[in-house]
Amino acid sequence: MTITATTTTTATTTVGVELGERRYDVHIGNFSPDAVAETLARALGGDVTGVGVLVDGELGRRSPRVAPLVDALRARLPRVARLDLPGGEASKNLAEIGRTTQWLAEQGYDRRAAVIGVGGGAAGDHSGFAAAVYLRGVRFALCPTTLLAMVDASVGGKTAVDLPAGKNLVGAFHQPRAVVAELGFLQTLPARELRAGIAEVIKCGFIADPALLAIFDAHPGGRLSDQAIAALVAGAVRVKAAVVAEDELEGGRRAILNFGHTIGHALEAESAYALLHGEAVSLGMIAAMSLGVARGITPPALAERARALLADAGLPVDLDGRVTPAVMARVGVDKKRAGKAVRFVLCAAAGDTRICDVGLDELRAHFLQSA
Amino acid sequence: MTITATTTTTATTTVGVELGERRYDVHIGNFSPDAVAETLARALGGDVTGVGVLVDGELGRRSPRVAPLVDALRARLPRVARLDLPGGEASKNLAEIGRTTQWLAEQGYDRRAAVIGVGGGAAGDHSGFAAAVYLRGVRFALCPTTLLAMVDASVGGKTAVDLPAGKNLVGAFHQPRAVVAELGFLQTLPARELRAGIAEVIKCGFIADPALLAIFDAHPGGRLSDQAIAALVAGAVRVKAAVVAEDELEGGRRAILNFGHTIGHALEAESAYALLHGEAVSLGMIAAMSLGVARGITPPALAERARALLADAGLPVDLDGRVTPAVMARVGVDKKRAGKAVRFVLCAAAGDTRICDVGLDELRAHFLQSA
Repeated sequence: MTITATTTTTATTTVGVELGERRYDVHIGNFSPDAVAETLARALGGDVTGVGVLVDGELGRRSPRVAPLVDALRARLPRVARLDLPGGEASKNLAEIGRTTQWLAEQGYDRRAAVIGVGGGAAGDHSGFAAAVYLRGVRFALCPTTLLAMVDASVGGKTAVDLPAGKNLVGAFHQPRAVVAELGFLQTLPARELRAGIAEVIKCGFIADPALLAIFDAHPGGRLSDQAIAALVAGAVRVKAAVVAEDELEGGRRAILNFGHTIGHALEAESAYALLHGEAVSLGMIAAMSLGVARGITPPALAERARALLADAGLPVDLDGRVTPAVMARVGVDKKRAGKAVRFVLCAAAGDTRICDVGLDELRAHFLQSA
Repeated sequence: MTITATTTTTATTTVGVELGERRYDVHIGNFSPDAVAETLARALGGDVTGVGVLVDGELGRRSPRVAPLVDALRARLPRVARLDLPGGEASKNLAEIGRTTQWLAEQGYDRRAAVIGVGGGAAGDHSGFAAAVYLRGVRFALCPTTLLAMVDASVGGKTAVDLPAGKNLVGAFHQPRAVVAELGFLQTLPARELRAGIAEVIKCGFIADPALLAIFDAHPGGRLSDQAIAALVAGAVRVKAAVVAEDELEGGRRAILNFGHTIGHALEAESAYALLHGEAVSLGMIAAMSLGVARGITPPALAERARALLADAGLPVDLDGRVTPAVMARVGVDKKRAGKAVRFVLCAAAGDTRICDVGLDELRAHFLQSA
């Protein structure tokens, strides 16, 4: 998977997210720092009294795009201050939330202040949760800088930090006022992280939008142009926005977003997070396709197509030996279990899913035998 | 202020709290442990999967009523476990929220679990916030055991913990499924804490319900019967429920609940919390009455009545020397400031308030001169 860097500026796409009484836009494209700042300033509102910009620390050290963005924000918004978080998952704990909220208080930010999160999924989760709880909730906006965060964290309003007992066990639903996905950040994203994000895009294709899969077909070998990336991000965000709008909180239609995640989460955790989320979801989709074939829901040709697409994108597709009894034990205690059955999203055709509760015995027989 | 212990069982009062799509009841009276457990079990719902009972540690050591309550809960609800928090304000920080949520995770509680908070305002705040953020929100019920918590924390859904920078700076709005104010807990409440709770009841009388003040008139010398206490708690909860129902979130009508709190919070903080909240609010009401008289809004006789009622209840009423420049500086940075003016609730008659923005200069002239 590579992005062929071009100087062509891609067109901007705006996807509206409707959530009950609130709506916000996800802006996708190549934006100048000024354009990002203008969009964020407009979304945060003219009465905003201060802005804490929380930056993933690794991104802050590595990317030349952060400082100009903060400068542009300073030119348009009052009392802008920047805090660099620990890089990645290291920011996702209550101790760091304590440090960030204390920092917000030390800036003198009041209830009309805002938090802008700049970084990948972890920085977004940290920033969103800090914004959700500081003074019982201040405004929030998000600048996702990884492909996974652009397609996965832009919509849904889920924020969380980890506990020793597990990931994302403490959090809040807190919707951003706006999301700006500046695709330029992807130019310096490590290739492995880019591939991991692609897994979520492919997931969106299989659960809801076959046209996304066609874009991959048109770019074999994982060579995606800027335009293709922009279209994939916009398409995936559109899928997620449509699903979440129907079902703001957990349950119901939103469950289809868990395609590939039931086994995926277990593999990810059992690997002690050596597998990236997207890599685990790739394997989880392979697992769900295999289970669907065994149950007569998934046509074998569809399972083959998934394997080919994921492999072409450079994602892991070989389940052999991965679904160990230890992984199965994790599936059995997954949050989504209902009694002794485990809820799976199975795929009947591209864009057509079935929610099935599968007994633990059937799961063990299928995966431990085929493993 | 004493409660004359009687063996008479007071009548039970139920006050409904209406908040948008959700409603819940505050039950006030003398209840057996079984009655409390039955009420809570019904409110939490038949599908609840586990219940974490969070008990103020000091209360847990001191009160003989806690263990029978937990036993009664065990008899009616699944997977009941008890965690004793540090006593009082010591539980109100993110490190303790981390400990509590980790404990909830270790019990295996899922999204349909519930948290019941048993204790004063701090235990309620801790429990409510833990319930708000564990798995992004689980059900919550409250058993307030102090008079202040019964009248102040039962309604409003505000939960919070402290930061080094200040109190209640991190939190969430999270409504309980039910509140059970078992008045028996008040029998062992220290007299000073009982008096502090009375200050909030008197506040409710002045802002909205003169009939509450008449109950005090009928019990001079601070000698309140069980029946009087029950009526005062029910009346104060009714006032707060009516106000909050009109204005679930901050602003608007809810602002009248801050009567006595503008100066009160500053005095409380400047005393390093040597003053109890209710004691500070008593002084804050004296301050607001004095400011109202100076502005021609408050009749001098009303200010006198407030002073007499508060003094009769054993609460501090002498402002002399208390409103120092340091206190004024805290008023100037209070969360409720709007620009260079400070928002005050002034009282024109018992049950009739005015919201006034008072300039910092006027405030300094009034209080630093009269101090």
